[in-house]
Amino acid sequence: MAGGIGSRFWPLSTPEYPKQFIDILGCGRTLIQLTVDRFKGICPMSNFWIVTNAAYVEIVRQQLPDIPVDHILAEPAARNTAPCIAWACWRIKQQSPNANVVVTPADAVVMNPEEFRRVINNALNFTASHNSIVTIGIKPSRPETGYGYIKVNAAGQAEGEIHPVEAFKEKPNLDTAQQYLTDGGYLWNAGIFVWNVDTITSAIHTYKPNLANDMEQMKTPADVQTIFPQCEKISIDYAVMEPSAAEGKVFTHPADFGWSDLGNWASLHDKLDHDQNNNGAVGNVRMYECNNCVVHAEDAKKVVLQGLDGYIVSEKGGQILVCRRSEEQRIKEFSQE
Amino acid sequence: MAGGIGSRFWPLSTPEYPKQFIDILGCGRTLIQLTVDRFKGICPMSNFWIVTNAAYVEIVRQQLPDIPVDHILAEPAARNTAPCIAWACWRIKQQSPNANVVVTPADAVVMNPEEFRRVINNALNFTASHNSIVTIGIKPSRPETGYGYIKVNAAGQAEGEIHPVEAFKEKPNLDTAQQYLTDGGYLWNAGIFVWNVDTITSAIHTYKPNLANDMEQMKTPADVQTIFPQCEKISIDYAVMEPSAAEGKVFTHPADFGWSDLGNWASLHDKLDHDQNNNGAVGNVRMYECNNCVVHAEDAKKVVLQGLDGYIVSEKGGQILVCRRSEEQRIKEFSQE
Repeated sequence: MAGGIGSRFWPLSTPEYPKQFIDILGCGRTLIQLTVDRFKGICPMSNFWIVTNAAYVEIVRQQLPDIPVDHILAEPAARNTAPCIAWACWRIKQQSPNANVVVTPADAVVMNPEEFRRVINNALNFTASHNSIVTIGIKPSRPETGYGYIKVNAAGQAEGEIHPVEAFKEKPNLDTAQQYLTDGGYLWNAGIFVWNVDTITSAIHTYKPNLANDMEQMKTPADVQTIFPQCEKISIDYAVMEPSAAEGKVFTHPADFGWSDLGNWASLHDKLDHDQNNNGAVGNVRMYECNNCVVHAEDAKKVVLQGLDGYIVSEKGGQILVCRRSEEQRIKEFSQE
Repeated sequence: MAGGIGSRFWPLSTPEYPKQFIDILGCGRTLIQLTVDRFKGICPMSNFWIVTNAAYVEIVRQQLPDIPVDHILAEPAARNTAPCIAWACWRIKQQSPNANVVVTPADAVVMNPEEFRRVINNALNFTASHNSIVTIGIKPSRPETGYGYIKVNAAGQAEGEIHPVEAFKEKPNLDTAQQYLTDGGYLWNAGIFVWNVDTITSAIHTYKPNLANDMEQMKTPADVQTIFPQCEKISIDYAVMEPSAAEGKVFTHPADFGWSDLGNWASLHDKLDHDQNNNGAVGNVRMYECNNCVVHAEDAKKVVLQGLDGYIVSEKGGQILVCRRSEEQRIKEFSQE
């Protein structure tokens, strides 16, 4: 899933060139390239499918030249994750009716890809023999209010590391998040799902028959243009996960592989290497008397910063932001004014 | 005189593209263009002479296309102002033995060009009939320690607004500058000189005979390459002004036309229009909760600044500086590390 258009990292990330296509960690690979790299040994390039906005198809082709061009599905309109996932799974099912599928966002990071592969292989082995949905549950390290949570069914029967899910929980307030952390039976919902393609298409038939019907009708590129934009705009969580979990059909694999959705500058700062003054920087950046800054200057030839404490500095394509870290929720507003 | 290579405005100004060639006020004209514009009605384009470093000749031609190409004198090496001025004056004397000449730096600003023209015309009328040097003396508005001062000879005979000079004074410390201001008989030395070409060439023959001899020898471009770099590296102030003043041959025209040498960011901030929070900005700049900042973003498409108090923000050609105004004396060091 590579359709995101977030502006939280403006000007680094823009609607024309969003976060998944940026080398946000300064490691030489963009987030979508890192996401594909992560599946090395699990999935050959010929088996990847990318769903993205039509505007980003060319960027995907440039960044992932080894993925078959007809596996890049261009959404004519953004309809949230349920139609996105349904489209890819219907297409996969046409080619491989028994495929086991991993669904993943293209814009998250995983600091331990080896552990990631171990967990994904476990989940794929499970779905190969179970008509069940597996969602990867990240072991929480802090009372994060920016993620949804998965409540493990403590009374349920585990199979190896894979546990039944009792319920999905919306993003909590801080008190509730703290309670989840203390309780111990809650995991972060990373939006990474593993299933047999028959399982998910059947679930969509059951819980969202109109969406399933839309998918059955979508046979030609012209069909996509007319039908896809009419699909119900709904997340896979609401459309499938919650009703499936209520019937005890969803499992989770708890995992700890250094995952982050990089949803804000604080999480990027967290993932970057820090100098002795707790600054994290990507680019040709020199800092004097700076502390606690997070800097990403992708295109600048040289950046010199002096006397900044707790600031975001971001540059791309001739646009520049300097902003207190405490004000980062206003960046989208700044980008639009 | 357009040979400056200052780095105090880095990255706005660089050795490759120094301050005189920058639209530092954001008015659509560079400092050298504004300097030429200022002489409208006094001096036709065919009578301008520019002395600059060989590296900047192409920039001068681009920015001042109406000045005769053979009036752009390319210094093969920087030798301070005495050889620079001598070269131009010897060349002018060849063409016009009785020319009255104004010498001016190319990188200062004058906020009231009409008053500037009135003063310059007064001085030119004076030198047309007096074998004397006139230096323009700026009425000081503060105890500035960054300029040299001119001490007026209070006992001397003035002719209209033009007074004899008693002495030139080096850049003072703050106490002395304050004393000059209180005393009232001191003016800033703006480095703007008016003289008959015969006066200055004679003075150089008298006080710097070796330099005069070098100029007499410099007949061909090849001569320039070999002789000019060997000229004594000395300012016109030391070479001519001080010994001439000691003999009572220098006059000054006190003036108040909004002059600044824009020698630092504080003086640029002073000359820019300010918003209600005392920010001065050039470029497509949006500021939120910013105070007392000076911003020059010449090439950036968009700059957003939040929560900065008393900072310099400068951008050009993909180089970016953010620095406390109190630390501006370190900018040259920053640019070189």
